[in-house]
Formats: sequence, structure tokens, C-alpha cells
Amino acid sequence: MHIPADAVIERWTPIELVFDADTTRSWVDVDVTVIFRSGTIANTVAGFGSGEGTVLVRFAPPETGEWTWDARTPDGATSGRFSCVEGTSRGPVRVAAGGAHFDYADGTPYRPFGTTLYAWTHQDEGVRAQTLHTLAASPFNKVRMCVFPKGMVYNTDDPEFFPFEREGESWNVHRPVAAFWDGLDERLRELDALEVEADLILLHPYDVWGLATLTYEDCLVYLRYCVARLAAHRNVWWSLANEYDMVFGRGNEEWRAFGELISSIDPAAHLLSVHNWLTLWDASLPWVTHCSIQSQAVHDVAEWRTRWGKPVIVDEYGYEGDIVEPWGHLSGFELVHRTWCIVASGGYATHGETYYRDDQVLWWAKGGSLRGEAPMRFAFLRELVEGFRQPLTPRAANAVLNPNGTDDTFLTQLITAFEEADPLVRERVRAELTPYESTAGDDVVLRYLGRSCQAVLDWELPAGEFRIDVIDVWRMTRRTVLPTAAGAVRVPLPAIEGTAVLAVRLP
Amino acid sequence: MHIPADAVIERWTPIELVFDADTTRSWVDVDVTVIFRSGTIANTVAGFGSGEGTVLVRFAPPETGEWTWDARTPDGATSGRFSCVEGTSRGPVRVAAGGAHFDYADGTPYRPFGTTLYAWTHQDEGVRAQTLHTLAASPFNKVRMCVFPKGMVYNTDDPEFFPFEREGESWNVHRPVAAFWDGLDERLRELDALEVEADLILLHPYDVWGLATLTYEDCLVYLRYCVARLAAHRNVWWSLANEYDMVFGRGNEEWRAFGELISSIDPAAHLLSVHNWLTLWDASLPWVTHCSIQSQAVHDVAEWRTRWGKPVIVDEYGYEGDIVEPWGHLSGFELVHRTWCIVASGGYATHGETYYRDDQVLWWAKGGSLRGEAPMRFAFLRELVEGFRQPLTPRAANAVLNPNGTDDTFLTQLITAFEEADPLVRERVRAELTPYESTAGDDVVLRYLGRSCQAVLDWELPAGEFRIDVIDVWRMTRRTVLPTAAGAVRVPLPAIEGTAVLAVRLP
Repeated sequence: MHIPADAVIERWTPIELVFDADTTRSWVDVDVTVIFRSGTIANTVAGFGSGEGTVLVRFAPPETGEWTWDARTPDGATSGRFSCVEGTSRGPVRVAAGGAHFDYADGTPYRPFGTTLYAWTHQDEGVRAQTLHTLAASPFNKVRMCVFPKGMVYNTDDPEFFPFEREGESWNVHRPVAAFWDGLDERLRELDALEVEADLILLHPYDVWGLATLTYEDCLVYLRYCVARLAAHRNVWWSLANEYDMVFGRGNEEWRAFGELISSIDPAAHLLSVHNWLTLWDASLPWVTHCSIQSQAVHDVAEWRTRWGKPVIVDEYGYEGDIVEPWGHLSGFELVHRTWCIVASGGYATHGETYYRDDQVLWWAKGGSLRGEAPMRFAFLRELVEGFRQPLTPRAANAVLNPNGTDDTFLTQLITAFEEADPLVRERVRAELTPYESTAGDDVVLRYLGRSCQAVLDWELPAGEFRIDVIDVWRMTRRTVLPTAAGAVRVPLPAIEGTAVLAVRLP
Repeated sequence: MHIPADAVIERWTPIELVFDADTTRSWVDVDVTVIFRSGTIANTVAGFGSGEGTVLVRFAPPETGEWTWDARTPDGATSGRFSCVEGTSRGPVRVAAGGAHFDYADGTPYRPFGTTLYAWTHQDEGVRAQTLHTLAASPFNKVRMCVFPKGMVYNTDDPEFFPFEREGESWNVHRPVAAFWDGLDERLRELDALEVEADLILLHPYDVWGLATLTYEDCLVYLRYCVARLAAHRNVWWSLANEYDMVFGRGNEEWRAFGELISSIDPAAHLLSVHNWLTLWDASLPWVTHCSIQSQAVHDVAEWRTRWGKPVIVDEYGYEGDIVEPWGHLSGFELVHRTWCIVASGGYATHGETYYRDDQVLWWAKGGSLRGEAPMRFAFLRELVEGFRQPLTPRAANAVLNPNGTDDTFLTQLITAFEEADPLVRERVRAELTPYESTAGDDVVLRYLGRSCQAVLDWELPAGEFRIDVIDVWRMTRRTVLPTAAGAVRVPLPAIEGTAVLAVRLP
């Protein structure tokens, strides 16, 4: 199938080529590949089966200008052309220059403030509509969501559709179910309309249907399908797994092969990460674009940034809620507190909420409505962060533990003894001493004091004059305590948990 | 010097024998030893120098009945007798039968609810009087206090008296300063009048006068003096060191020798412990009567009890206050929360308060007045615990991490993976899963839910019928939620931080 030669496509908006093909046995057998060219760009895109007798090729042009395409199909070669013009889309989110933050492809900054909606796409239309309504009014601009349905506590229902046809006791990954994938396409478009990124979890362990235990080969087919079908969506991110190390029986070499595959075939080069349970994924691998971390060690964020030189998103650090599971009954304050620790360390944080409901529609998995106290504090924090001209970068982390920083003998002995102490003790001390402090360009310094109730902060400012504001992260207030400050200052504080201090350079 | 043969002494009340002796060079040179005998008891007590020309011998008879004493002095042998009758004193606190708790020598239970007053004895009379006034109205029945003055932040003044005479740049431990030691005697009596135990810290690292760096031999002289002079005080406990591992240059073999010495010469066999900084002292040593621990790992209390089979007092886990030091700016809630974790694990907890004052009279060191929100919650907790007929013993700690407790394959895989994870991660998960739960005899079960905001607790009760109360540890309320409960129960909760659940057996 062709599109008219005078077609005009908006940048980062998918076009779809449709080819007749016999996909009865497997869409994989049908070799349809299209090369899209413009200037020096040449993107090779594979087709994917959708329904009976057709193979589709999708492509979202990343640049304006004249494009041509050349298709190789079982029926022979075919080709066409179209024009691409600027539209309203800002394009996919990517790692920004500098390596620790994100922006849209058009250069607009993007600061992730995500939430968790693992199985929202598998709920009925009413719940989905409510979820979108809630999202629209929320501060969240990213959603962590699974492609596959979710089978675990509070998630025991079969979904309306499965991704593949059943064949006896197994899934036939060669025969995708059109209704399932059409629905997922629609969900991604719904999120995009809200300017919400979709951090798509491709594989996960919460399963009662045998989808977590697909064979390695079946996974490759499935992942190829995901990329061929979904990569043209502007707002897709690939999260190779949720809790990869809880998918028992799947070795790290398989995860590496999956990551390499996606990275090599995705024409849009979407963000790609692996979310962990107990053991952080090795983010030094070249195809890993950023760290997607589960950990409560929020004092490690600055170190992770340094270790990998990539953006850090702490995608799981407990949820606000009241369920019995330890990960799901944090107070709103505790979640907000951890969030500030992460953000003030130059990282990003993903919200989750798990208040029990008799209908089992818990936000974290199914969506619906939010009732927690944290979301409005995420909004407050997002507004603050987006008000900075630059993203946050950790400032002098752990300087307090530097034995070279002092010529005091007793202090040197303290630090030496600390370095030789039991690792668990050292970790506790380190967690206690790590400052949550960062700069945004040269005009902002942010320090979050966590649960400290200290009455003053003795602070060394960068050169120049600053105004010092004190922020109450829970009551969402900000007031100036020192209109003019320079050098070493003593900042008076309210001496309560959840206090942040902000230095803003005076003009 | 003799006491009249018809003297009548109350049990556990010190008598003092005074002998003339030349102590000019050293009281140690003057060999005065008295053996006190009654029935099969024979206690050998050494004399100590006090002022010029006298050596004193003090003894508090531990049993009623007729006593004789035989003194060996430089002037020859001498002897005497007295009667001992029951008085009002309950005697020294000791480890109770069973090994994990305390009682007074008369068998009355003693549950430590201590506070920290490191240098209160070194303050002027006005501050000391205020301290005693505050203590009298407080829930605290034990004080951690240093013999030596304290030199560190917020404690920079020289004390009025030092324990020894100066000799050039050194201290002459052979020449104690009478005014210093007379004052300490008086302070111990003042505490005893309030029924407050004195956990006497014999050595510590916070020092600007050279008292932390006494030679090993000088320490032995000093410790002998402490025992000879102070052991007759009913309410003395020996804390060999505060933060022994911060006294740089003092090896563990020296601490062991000190502990063995005290244990071998103390006729009253007072409680004896060593308080740590980073590395817990080895409480398996036979002369260690109980664990005096500094740690924030309050989830370890039940394990420490099991490891050593001795009472556990967490003597330092942060202080309520507003100073800049991380150990001194906990919120009142945080301190109370940690306290409940400790007590509900079958341990004991020592309070401390560090609100800054311009006069530098911070409670934790100098005393004065309390202003925190924690003390009244300590009173609430103490009243609860003292209302139980038996002390608290941990119940089924860590059962949740037992891989033999399930035949669920996925759960077994989870636990196995957890066991193989990085120790720091394992520790975090363990801290999150450890239940703060204990029983008091067979009629009380206490579970503290910490910061969990869970809305229900699914709980397995011991055999029999119970009433279930829910306690708000901060608001200090207690209300019955299930008047009658048995077996596996679901307890409704207020879903806020700081909730405890109490099961009381129905009559």
C-alpha cells in the first residue's frame, strides 16, 4: 500500500504502510522491511503482523523535509515519498547533552515526574477513562506500565485480551492478538495526548498465565514485535523488565541479548533501561540509556550518577498507601521525603500509591483515582524544579567523609576508624551524613535536610550574592529568610522534618 | 576507726570505716583491706584515700543479720561487728533469672527507662538542682553519666574540680581530689533519693584535659579507686566506657583487663558493660553483665538478645533535638518511634535530648530542664510496660524470612535470591520485614507497627481468648478494637505511623 506522493506528515507523527501478506503461520516469516531516507538519514524499519493477511510498517519521521521510502516485500519492491513538516510534537524524550538529564528531541527540557500504573491498560473502559481523567489533573508526566497483564496480589483477574493466541498450554508469540495490540496503541496515544511518557515494561515476573516464562526465542519474537509496532509512538520508553532479578530462570546474558536487540533495531532509539529488584542492573552497558532503579537507599543517588554518568530515575522506593505489604504502606510524608532526597541529589523519582479498596482498584496497578497526600507535593516539587533554568547536579556529595578535608588529628582518626568499620555500620553512618544538595546551573543551590530538625544550617555559598528561601516540603510553603547572603552563612530554620533550603543568585 | 558493736545498719546502706594512714605519695601504697563476714558470706573490700592522712573502707551489707569485719592496716589488725536489718532500699539492680531482664536485689522488677546526662555532675549547683528537679518529675529511672568531665562541642568549660591533682603536664592518679569525689558521692546519693540508677561511665573519649589518654597503669589505679570508693552506692552501674572504640590508642585487651579487674574486685558485683561507637563490644565475655549498645539498627534488638542471652539496653540511638549534629536533631516522633521498636523487641532504650540553648545547657550533657515531646511518651510507655506481670520477650522474630516456612515455589525462590543478595540490600530488606513483636508472659502480646500505615494487621494469637487494643504511641491513647479475639484475627488499624497493637488474655 502506498501513501500519496503529496502527503504531508508532521514531524514525530507516525505514518503507517500496509502490505498484504500471509501471516497465518507467523508474521515473522513475512519479510517486509522499509528503508526511510531523508538527506543523510536512512532508517530501516521492520513490518509487523496485525490481524489476518496484512503486515504494517510504522515510522515517525524525526526530521522535517522530503522523505522517500523503499519497501522490500514478498511481492517485490515498492517505494514512495512524503513531506515532513513541523507539527506540535516535541518528539521522543532522550538523554540530554551532559548525560545526566533528559530533554525532548526538539530540545525542550523534560524532567520526569512519573507514577506507577502497572496494569492500567488491562482494566475495563470505565476504569481506564477515570485513570486518564486523574492523570490529566495530576503532576505526573510519565507512567510505568506493563505490556503484559499482571498476576499478583490485588491483581487476580484475567484481562479481556491476551497478547498472543493460545496453543494448548503455550502462547504462540507468532500470532499476536489484534485487539490486544490495537488497544495498547490506543492507550499510548491517549497518554501522548496528555503529554505523558509511557515507560513500557516489556517483561515482568508477576504472572499466573505463563507470560513470565516465555522461552528465550519466543521473547526475541515478542520484543521484535514490540519494536516494530510501538517504536513509532513518540512517548514510548523501553523498560526491558520490572524486577529483572525476580524473573527466576532468566539469566543476565538473556537480558543483555534482549537489550542489544532492541537497541539495534529501534529506529527511534527510544530510552531503554532495566528495572531491578535486589541487584541493580549494570548501567554501564552501552545500550542502557539511563538507570531505572528500585532501592530505598535514596542517599545513593548522587553516587549512582557518578558511577554511570547517566540519568538516574528511582522508579521504586515504596508507595504511599495502607496495604499490609511493606512496600505499600508508607505515609504520604515518608514518600514525599524520599522523593525530595532523590530530586535534591540530581535524580528523578517515580510516585506510586497503594490504598486498599474493596474493588481492588489500587492506583499502582489498575489506576482509577488518587487519594493520597503525596501527589500535590509532587506538583509543588515539579513546579519548583521546572522553574530552574538548569537541571539539578549534586554538589560536593560526601565531602564530610573525606579524610583529606581536615588537619584535625581526632577527626582524621574518626574517619579512619569509620573506613575500617563493618560495612553495615558504615552504610548507616553514610546514609546519615550524605547531604541532599545540588546546584541548578550557577544560579541555584538546593539543600534538602530530610528528617533533620536542626534549627540552623551553616552553609557555604558559591561566589556571589544569593537570596535564601526556606521551603516546607509538606506544607508547600516557601519564604525568604535571608534577602541577601554571601559566603559562609547561617540560615535559620523552622527545626521540623521536611525542610529544604534554596539559594537563588541575586541579579 | 571502729563503729559501735551495737550499731544497726540498714541493708544495702553503706557504712564507712576510717583509718589513719599516710597517703601523701599514694593511697595505693597504703594497704588497708577489710573482710566483711556474715554466715557464709565473706566480702573483701579495699580502702581508698580521701583527703590527707585517712583511708576509708565502705561497705553496703547485702544481707540482714550479724556481721563482723576484720581489717588489715599498716598499723596492724583490727576488727568489729554490726547488725544489719531490712530498710527501705531495694538494693542494687542485677540481671534477673532468665538472663534478659533486670530486677532489684530484693526481687522487685526493674525496667530501665534511662536518660543521658553525661556531664551533669560537673555543672554548678543551680543547674544541678534544676536537673534533679526535672528528673524527679520525669519518667527516667536511670542516668548515663561520666565520672570525668566532658570536653567536646557544647561542653567547653573547665569543671570546678578535677578528679586528680595535676603534676606538670600529667594527672597524678595517686592523689585524688577530695572535693571532686565528695561531690560525686553526693550526686549518687541525690540520684538514689529519686530512685534513679547511675550508669557511671568510667572512661570516655570527649576530652581536652588528657583524661582520655591516661596510661594503662594509671587507669588501673583509677578504676581501683572507683570501685573502692563507689561500689557501696546501691545505684551504681559500671559503664567501662562510652564509645570505647573512639578512645583511640586504647586496645581491646586493655578494656578486657579493665573489665576483669572491676569484676574481680567489686564486692557488690554491680552491673558492668561497655558502650560502643561503631563496633559492638563482645558481650559474650563473662564479666559483661548486659549489652550497652549504640546503634540505630533497632531492628537488631531481638537478634542481640539471642546472640548474647543478656539484657539489651540501646543506650544511644539518636537524641530528640535541633542541633546541627546528625545524632542530635531527631524529631520527638522519631525518637519515640525508635524507642518503641526497641522495647517491643524485648530491649530497653535510653532517652537523650539536645535542644540548643544560648547558655549551652543542653540536657544530654549538662542537664537543666527538658523541653522535648518525647519524655511524656516515655512515661506512657513505661506505665504500659510496668503494667505487665512479666517482661517482654521477642516473639518469632524474622519468621517471615524463613525459607522452610513455605512450600510455595516462588516464595522459596524469592527467599533464596534474598539470601544471596548484597549484604547492604539484605540488611535493608531485613530492617523492613523485622516485626517488633514480643510477649509478656503468656497473657500479653505486643506488636509495634513502626512507620507502617497499614489499615489492618492479620495476626496469629497464642491459644486462648484475648482482648485487642490499639495504641497510638504519639497521642498516647489506647482503645479496644476487638473485645474478644482468638486464633487468626484481622485487627483494624488507624493506618497511621506509630501504631501498636496489644493482645491481653481474657480472664
